[in-house]
Amino acid sequence: MTDSSTHLYSPGLVGIIATESSVSNINGEKGILSYRGYSIEELAQKSTFEETAYLLLFGDLPTRDQLKEFTDKVTEHRTLPENLVNILKSLPKETKPMDVLQMSVSSLGTFYDLEVSPEMVKSKKYNKEYFMNTSASLIGALGSLVAAWHRIRQGQEPISSNDASSYAENFLNMLGFEKITPLMTRIMDATLVLHGEHTINASTFTAMVTSSTLANASQVVASAIGSLSGPLHGGANEKVVSMLQKIDKKEDIRPWLEDTLKSKNVVWGMGHREYSVKDPRANILTDMVQQLFDERDGGVTDIFEKAIELEKACEEKLSHKGVYPNVDFYSGILYKEMGIPTDIFTPIFAMSRVSGWLAHWTEQIQDNKIFRPTQNYVGSDDRQYKDINDR
Amino acid sequence: MTDSSTHLYSPGLVGIIATESSVSNINGEKGILSYRGYSIEELAQKSTFEETAYLLLFGDLPTRDQLKEFTDKVTEHRTLPENLVNILKSLPKETKPMDVLQMSVSSLGTFYDLEVSPEMVKSKKYNKEYFMNTSASLIGALGSLVAAWHRIRQGQEPISSNDASSYAENFLNMLGFEKITPLMTRIMDATLVLHGEHTINASTFTAMVTSSTLANASQVVASAIGSLSGPLHGGANEKVVSMLQKIDKKEDIRPWLEDTLKSKNVVWGMGHREYSVKDPRANILTDMVQQLFDERDGGVTDIFEKAIELEKACEEKLSHKGVYPNVDFYSGILYKEMGIPTDIFTPIFAMSRVSGWLAHWTEQIQDNKIFRPTQNYVGSDDRQYKDINDR
Repeated sequence: MTDSSTHLYSPGLVGIIATESSVSNINGEKGILSYRGYSIEELAQKSTFEETAYLLLFGDLPTRDQLKEFTDKVTEHRTLPENLVNILKSLPKETKPMDVLQMSVSSLGTFYDLEVSPEMVKSKKYNKEYFMNTSASLIGALGSLVAAWHRIRQGQEPISSNDASSYAENFLNMLGFEKITPLMTRIMDATLVLHGEHTINASTFTAMVTSSTLANASQVVASAIGSLSGPLHGGANEKVVSMLQKIDKKEDIRPWLEDTLKSKNVVWGMGHREYSVKDPRANILTDMVQQLFDERDGGVTDIFEKAIELEKACEEKLSHKGVYPNVDFYSGILYKEMGIPTDIFTPIFAMSRVSGWLAHWTEQIQDNKIFRPTQNYVGSDDRQYKDINDR
Repeated sequence: MTDSSTHLYSPGLVGIIATESSVSNINGEKGILSYRGYSIEELAQKSTFEETAYLLLFGDLPTRDQLKEFTDKVTEHRTLPENLVNILKSLPKETKPMDVLQMSVSSLGTFYDLEVSPEMVKSKKYNKEYFMNTSASLIGALGSLVAAWHRIRQGQEPISSNDASSYAENFLNMLGFEKITPLMTRIMDATLVLHGEHTINASTFTAMVTSSTLANASQVVASAIGSLSGPLHGGANEKVVSMLQKIDKKEDIRPWLEDTLKSKNVVWGMGHREYSVKDPRANILTDMVQQLFDERDGGVTDIFEKAIELEKACEEKLSHKGVYPNVDFYSGILYKEMGIPTDIFTPIFAMSRVSGWLAHWTEQIQDNKIFRPTQNYVGSDDRQYKDINDR
C-alpha cells in the first residue's frame, strides 16, 4: 500500500481496490463479463441457474454428480418451513416485497443451521460441505419466499414446490402461472444466470463487509438485500417499465426522448458505468425479446413496441457517447411481458444475485480481514459541555 | 486521488479513507474519543442517551425544547405495533436475539413511514423533521424489541413502556427488573452513551454502504445489525464474561493468564486496535464497577473479583505493550452483575449504536455517492464451456 498519509479521498471508494477476487471479471471497453473465466454469453445460452450458481460458488463447472448433489439440496429448501410461512401470513398485505424478503431471510438462521462454528472460526477451515449446505438452503429458500409472499399478499395459499421442475420453471409455477412455455422457462433461467454476479457493486460490497465480521450467512444475505432495496441500486428494470408505461404510444417515443435529454432527466435502462459498449448481458436478452414477441404473435402489449422504438431512437442519439441499452432495459420488458408484477423485479434480482453474494462470502471468510477503513474527520474539536439551562 | 493504477491492495481497507465525517473522532495515541467535538468522558458523566443521540444525529447539544421534542418522539415509539409483537410471539423461542432484532427491524418499514420519497431523492433535500421522525422511531423501537423478545422467549408477556421513565430506566423495567436503583439507571445510561458511536467500524461501514443506495432507514439499520452480529465484531463483552466464568476462582487468574499468553490465545476485553493507551471509555466504567461493588456490598458475584485480579495481572504483563482493558471488558462485567443475560449484550450494543448508524446515514445521504470500489481480479481467464458429459 502507498503511505496512507498521501491518500486522497475518493467518494464511493471509486477506483479503490477493496478485495482480490476470482469470482467474476468485467472488461468494460470490450463489453466482456465472465464468471470464473466463462463468458456470460456462453453461460446464458448453455447453462442453467443451478449450474451457474455452483460455478460461482465453487469455481468450476460441476460434474453430473456434483450438480445433482447441489441441485437436490437447493430443491429440498424450495419447501419453506411451515412456521416461516405462518409469519408471512401474519404480515400486513401491503408490506413491500423487499422488506418481506429481508425480514424472512433474517429468520432463516433460526430454521437452518447456518452458524459458523467457533471451531471453524478458530481453525479457519471451512469445508466445501459447509459452504454447499449453507448456500443451497439460502438459494433454495429465496425463490420460494418471493413467490409465497406474492401469493399471500393476494390472499392466496402459497403453491408447493414441484420438485421435478428446474428452479426457473418451478419459480414461475409457484408464482401462479397456469401456462408456462419452454421459452418462458428459458427466459427465466437466462435472466437468473445474467443477474447472478457483477463484481463489487454496493450490495455485494455490503455482503463482503458483513461477511468480514463472520456473521451468519443469513445475516450476510439480509444485509445485502437491504442494500439492493435502495432505489439507486436494484430498481432499474422496474423503472424501465414504469417509464415506458407513462409514454402513451410508440409515436410519442421520439419527442419524449428529445424532451428527456434536453431536461437532463434519466432514460432508465440506458448506459452503465462499467461498460462503454453495449452491456454483454443486454445482447443476449435482445434475442429473447424477439422470440417472446414471435411466440405471442399478436398478443403482445404495446410496451414491446415502445421499447423497440426507444432502443432505435437511443441508438441514433446516444451510441456515439457509448450509451447503449443495459441488462435492465430488456429484463424489465421480458418480465413484464411474461406477466410478472413490476414490484417483484428487484426481489427476483435478489433470488439470482444471492449466488454471487454467497460466492463472495465464501471467498471473504476463507481469507478474512474485518473491514475497518478510516475517515477524514471534518467536524468540531474541543467543545465544552454546557448545562441545558445555559444553551 | 492518486492514480488508481498505482494503488496497491489494503485488505480490510485499512488506512483507506472511506468518507469525510463530522460525527466522531478518535485520537488513539492520546486516548481521546469525541462525539461532535465533545469528549466521551464529559458526555458519559453529564449527558443521557437521548441527549447524546440527538447530539450525534444533529451535530449540537439540544435546547430544552429540542430535547423534549426528540425525547417525546422516541418515547412514543417505545410502544411497539401490536402486529409486530404478535410476530415475535410466533417465533421459535430459541431464536437468537440478534436474528430477532434484524428481522423485526426489517419489518419496521412496514409499520412506520420511513421511505425516502422520490421528491427528496430528486431534490436531495432532506429536512430535519424527516431525519428526526425516522431516527426517533428506530431508536425508540430498538430497546423495546430487545426487551420484548427477552420476555417472550421466557414465555412472559412483554412489559409496557412507562412513558414517564428515561430510556435507560424504562429499558431495565421492560426487561423485568423489579428493583432498579439510580446507580443501575446511571450505568445503563452511561454504557448506552459510550457505545453510541465509534467512527467507521464494520457495522457503521455496512450502514453507510447500504445508505448509499438510498435504502430505507430500517433496511440500513437491519444491514448494520447483520454486521454487528458477527463474532469478530459485536460479541466481545459477552466473551469477557464467559472467559471469566470458565476460570474457577480468583487465585487461578494468574496461572490462566500465563498459559493463555504462552499459547497465544485471546484475552477478551484487552487491547483495541484504535488505542495505544487505555480506551477512554474503559476509564469511565472502572469507577462504575467500583460503585456497583460498593452498592452491592457483600452481594456481588465472584466475577467482579476475578475481573479486578485479571486487570491487575494484565497491567503488569501487558501495559508496556500498550495493551489495556477496553470498553468491552467493563461493560460486560457491569451488565452481568446487574443481572442482564449475556446473550443480549450485543443487542444492547445495537440499541445504542443505532444512534451512530443513523448519524452516518444522515450524513451519507445528504452528500451521497453510491459505494462501488474496484477489485483486483485474480481468477481464470478465457475458459470454454464444456458439455456436462465431457467434464
